[in-house]
Amino acid sequence: MQSKKIKVGIVGGTGYTGVELLRLLALHPDVELSVITSRGEAGLPVADMFPSLRGRVNLAFTDPAQADLTLCDVVFFATPHGVAMSQAKALVAAGVKVIDLAADFRLQDTAVFEQWYKLSHSCPEILADAAYGIPELYRDKVRAAQVIGNPGCYPTTVLLGLAPLLEQGLIDLSVPIISDSKSGVSGAGRKAEVATLFAESSDNMKAYGVAGHRHHPEIHAQLQQIAGEQVQFIFVPHLIPMIRGMLSTIYVKLSALGLKTDIQGLYEARYQGEAFVDVLPPGSLPETRSVRGANQLRLALHPQADSGYLTIIVVQDNLVKGAAGQAVQNMNIMFDLDEQAGLNIVPLLP
Amino acid sequence: MQSKKIKVGIVGGTGYTGVELLRLLALHPDVELSVITSRGEAGLPVADMFPSLRGRVNLAFTDPAQADLTLCDVVFFATPHGVAMSQAKALVAAGVKVIDLAADFRLQDTAVFEQWYKLSHSCPEILADAAYGIPELYRDKVRAAQVIGNPGCYPTTVLLGLAPLLEQGLIDLSVPIISDSKSGVSGAGRKAEVATLFAESSDNMKAYGVAGHRHHPEIHAQLQQIAGEQVQFIFVPHLIPMIRGMLSTIYVKLSALGLKTDIQGLYEARYQGEAFVDVLPPGSLPETRSVRGANQLRLALHPQADSGYLTIIVVQDNLVKGAAGQAVQNMNIMFDLDEQAGLNIVPLLP
Amino acid sequence: MQSKKIKVGIVGGTGYTGVELLRLLALHPDVELSVITSRGEAGLPVADMFPSLRGRVNLAFTDPAQADLTLCDVVFFATPHGVAMSQAKALVAAGVKVIDLAADFRLQDTAVFEQWYKLSHSCPEILADAAYGIPELYRDKVRAAQVIGNPGCYPTTVLLGLAPLLEQGLIDLSVPIISDSKSGVSGAGRKAEVATLFAESSDNMKAYGVAGHRHHPEIHAQLQQIAGEQVQFIFVPHLIPMIRGMLSTIYVKLSALGLKTDIQGLYEARYQGEAFVDVLPPGSLPETRSVRGANQLRLALHPQADSGYLTIIVVQDNLVKGAAGQAVQNMNIMFDLDEQAGLNIVPLLP
Amino acid sequence: MQSKKIKVGIVGGTGYTGVELLRLLALHPDVELSVITSRGEAGLPVADMFPSLRGRVNLAFTDPAQADLTLCDVVFFATPHGVAMSQAKALVAAGVKVIDLAADFRLQDTAVFEQWYKLSHSCPEILADAAYGIPELYRDKVRAAQVIGNPGCYPTTVLLGLAPLLEQGLIDLSVPIISDSKSGVSGAGRKAEVATLFAESSDNMKAYGVAGHRHHPEIHAQLQQIAGEQVQFIFVPHLIPMIRGMLSTIYVKLSALGLKTDIQGLYEARYQGEAFVDVLPPGSLPETRSVRGANQLRLALHPQADSGYLTIIVVQDNLVKGAAGQAVQNMNIMFDLDEQAGLNIVPLLP
Repeated sequence: MQSKKIKVGIVGGTGYTGVELLRLLALHPDVELSVITSRGEAGLPVADMFPSLRGRVNLAFTDPAQADLTLCDVVFFATPHGVAMSQAKALVAAGVKVIDLAADFRLQDTAVFEQWYKLSHSCPEILADAAYGIPELYRDKVRAAQVIGNPGCYPTTVLLGLAPLLEQGLIDLSVPIISDSKSGVSGAGRKAEVATLFAESSDNMKAYGVAGHRHHPEIHAQLQQIAGEQVQFIFVPHLIPMIRGMLSTIYVKLSALGLKTDIQGLYEARYQGEAFVDVLPPGSLPETRSVRGANQLRLALHPQADSGYLTIIVVQDNLVKGAAGQAVQNMNIMFDLDEQAGLNIVPLLP
Repeated sequence: MQSKKIKVGIVGGTGYTGVELLRLLALHPDVELSVITSRGEAGLPVADMFPSLRGRVNLAFTDPAQADLTLCDVVFFATPHGVAMSQAKALVAAGVKVIDLAADFRLQDTAVFEQWYKLSHSCPEILADAAYGIPELYRDKVRAAQVIGNPGCYPTTVLLGLAPLLEQGLIDLSVPIISDSKSGVSGAGRKAEVATLFAESSDNMKAYGVAGHRHHPEIHAQLQQIAGEQVQFIFVPHLIPMIRGMLSTIYVKLSALGLKTDIQGLYEARYQGEAFVDVLPPGSLPETRSVRGANQLRLALHPQADSGYLTIIVVQDNLVKGAAGQAVQNMNIMFDLDEQAGLNIVPLLP
Repeated sequence: MQSKKIKVGIVGGTGYTGVELLRLLALHPDVELSVITSRGEAGLPVADMFPSLRGRVNLAFTDPAQADLTLCDVVFFATPHGVAMSQAKALVAAGVKVIDLAADFRLQDTAVFEQWYKLSHSCPEILADAAYGIPELYRDKVRAAQVIGNPGCYPTTVLLGLAPLLEQGLIDLSVPIISDSKSGVSGAGRKAEVATLFAESSDNMKAYGVAGHRHHPEIHAQLQQIAGEQVQFIFVPHLIPMIRGMLSTIYVKLSALGLKTDIQGLYEARYQGEAFVDVLPPGSLPETRSVRGANQLRLALHPQADSGYLTIIVVQDNLVKGAAGQAVQNMNIMFDLDEQAGLNIVPLLP
Repeated sequence: MQSKKIKVGIVGGTGYTGVELLRLLALHPDVELSVITSRGEAGLPVADMFPSLRGRVNLAFTDPAQADLTLCDVVFFATPHGVAMSQAKALVAAGVKVIDLAADFRLQDTAVFEQWYKLSHSCPEILADAAYGIPELYRDKVRAAQVIGNPGCYPTTVLLGLAPLLEQGLIDLSVPIISDSKSGVSGAGRKAEVATLFAESSDNMKAYGVAGHRHHPEIHAQLQQIAGEQVQFIFVPHLIPMIRGMLSTIYVKLSALGLKTDIQGLYEARYQGEAFVDVLPPGSLPETRSVRGANQLRLALHPQADSGYLTIIVVQDNLVKGAAGQAVQNMNIMFDLDEQAGLNIVPLLP
């Protein structure tokens, strides 16, 4: 019934994670889109900015100052870092759940947060109760939380790619874990910048953030959280000329125990029953397009016989399982809905 | 109820229209995928060829010689020209409906068919009863038909772009209608050919088929059918470095009556109630991505003040409204289902 | 000898036409790059902004206020519209030649200029003496001129595509000439804008400027200049997901005389001896990559038998024959150099 | 003088390395293109297949059976593996120099060659005298050789990226060297295959050859040759949706001595005077387009402070420094020409 639908607000609906939330929520059977705010575009019908939503989303952008978000059941923040934490206290007090797609609630160590984001954290007590929103790792915490720090796109690939090994202590941590990661250009956001123009980033590629990318501390903290010990971690992201898609090639040295373990079987068992994580058969070479548009992560395991290393290849759509799709998955869990509601999408191939 | 689902067969499931049918039908609430044939890939699980379908399509390809298609309620032919007509008679006799995505049932004039396709037509009597499958033009015929000639991708854009004018006699036919059309590379199919390699067709474009494209006679026949008189038609298709997407820029000279008509209003009235045709506001510039992955055609009207010409810009996804989506739409009508069943998809943007 | 080299200044070296001028001039045997100005990047070595120029261009950007351009023999303006005309008088007075890659010296009718560019023209007397820089049409004027209005990219394709017909009066001008033109994204310049981001313009296409593109009046004026009479002209440009490349598909109705003429022979004769215009054999389908990176325009002629129309397909690299290459060609003529000096480049294919 | 020009033959001129050789050699001041063979295209003018060469290459393809290659001074083999070794003996006997762009003369260990290429080596005595054609590593051998095994594209990036460290023994070889490499699609060649169609490989990426790529043994043998000891090597290549361009991200653990060394200074000194290897300033992030179309390799060094690792990022154009350009460079050395002759090209950016 209409009256039982979850009232959803979106703060910052003009970026790629915003429009992706709209794509997913427009067809979600249990959701009523109540308000979408944008400071710059107040009054503009959402579908005028994104014609793909014509006939699907009939709302106009609302000025944030005019929007009473406390009438919502849940508010997604698809905003720059720092916005969600400035509003979370009031929303939490009003009983509204918060899912932040930026970094405000991802790093429990506020000193690290402040070092990387150049912002002091304004609500550490809410942060302390927030869940890190990868359901396959923290489903119970997500269910119980009122605030979710929805993970970065890269971290989702690396953490789901490594969790089964880390949980079982099968990695030789005397050498670094290396993630050579590749992202489509939509990961840079819908911002007017020269570096991500078509004429700059098409038919071209580069590494970036080698000296320090903000997802490094996020991944690093979680790796150590899962492993329960110190981990060395090298992370090199690359910009690839595709709109969507993310692929991480992860290199780890297996421990002596790891070398004796059926790694393929371990992963299949760990992710059995997880609708959104797909362990591919041995020898598979996952393509990013195999998940395009869907809340799906696929991975394959490649032992490097001679060296005792294992190469793990993980793909996802950076805007879906890497952002908006995972956020909807978290919402479904928080509201006791079918975890797949609104996420029943077949990837677009070709 | 499961038992009431429509049993669907697909002949030739390894091309792009085949996998696109699978993407759409996998989530169709009223369909049971019964059989998918492929001569070359018999025995291979469909999802091994198209990992995007893992967990969605559990069938394997069947050898055509082993498949009893007469157990199906409807059979889609996503095959080269000539295959459907060779099997249509037996299927029709068995009460099975046929939707051909190739050209066998598009041209009522078999001489023209034979001239362009170098095949003599093997079942002209079935052709005579077949409907040309653009529901917005021929919905009643589609509903009554047992065999559908699903239109070519280009014809769908040109015919829906021009029908309101032709029906009302608002075009000055003393000069040719010109359609300068552009298609993504998936339109060339999933065939191993040098010309459509990434390294050949990326960062590049060209016109092709200028001396004569097979969609020319198809469009031409329909234009004259709708107009009820002779039409001169110039058609130049172009290959554009995008996977999906088709845009036709159509140039017509308005008749004296046309110049006095509210063309925008005419189009809006003509397509009111059509879920899959979207007349954009005056001045709009439709992008192909605004329909990516969805069974949607959008168009905009641009009068050229000085010359009395009108420019009509039409976009669709060539694999959806231009092929598999329209085929599903036809199926829905033929089986008295909700015309939108299985087609409730928000375009993928970005 | 070093002392005989032409001293070249470039105003506005940070855009795509600027870096393209640098690419070409860096290897020009008769040129010494003297100064490159940029307000925003003064002091920055050019090769730090464009690493492709490392070891090729050792200059740094100079603040325009510090640069004495009167020491140059020729100054190229790769700037927004309006900059060249503000400096041309002083340069001309100092005996410096000026080649403007913007629009300041393209339109002889200042009223039209002011209507389209929203700027009043500040030096109409210099404009009156300026040459419109398509050497294949106006070589003698170019040779004699001190100021060149280097043509827009689209106009070069349309005018060279039509000149042989217009010069001979072979077009039936009672109906409009239609140019359906397509451009790579670099044509939009190196400006931080959302619409030309990779994630917006890749795997996508659209028409733009249908209601009025600034190249329309430029082309229109030249068409009438060449024809010596009124011409109706419809121009629809499209944005194509490729970096470089431009293709115009031009539709004209031949006059009675035109229908009796050997058009292919006419074009071959007209452009015989022109190194940079290539008339392809009958039936050819020119690809934009066949000219990538080179100062080359290729065209093919396709009669539309039934209707008496002719379709002309023209390709060029929008940054070379459509901008910087043509500017260098003009410079070569102005200084009595080999017209091909610095332009001896084989297109990059694939 | 014309009579002094080097007579060049190309066997297999229809692939991407073939057309790239033609692009470079067409403007080479000291070369006369004598013969280009192709079994399938005999009689066809080369410029009919590659319109970019119109007016530049006036030869037609010759049937290999009709071509007397012994009249050439040098023959390039741009053919599948195995062709060059079948003809090398006769050419060498006739005093003709041979540059093979395939693998026949890259691996000195014929057992390894036979294992990876499934061909027994037909002229091991010629192989023994052949030089591995990376001039920056083996210039003297190249100068003296009559036969060159032109290296694979990936090996050039990895070997030039690591040589300064390996030569000085600065890598801790107790852990593997890892090269995560990325290639544009032209590296797969100009072959009709589904996997490299535009609609398959655009807007998509994947790893491939993880279980064993033919460049692994080639790189491995050279790494050990340069290091003078056993090396563990992990190599994961990836297919990236760009036409040209190759980027290798190489992860090595520095030895204790390495950690105390000025690595940036070491590289700058090692490659000082090398026109085709560019050591970028510290912190640089090389882009593949910075070398597009040019015989240039650029690299940057990124120490990973905490772990004692060094990340080396290397870019080249896979068809130029990774294939045809390096082959021309080798030819220049073999014939005592200016090493840069014919290679004086500014990269095409954007």
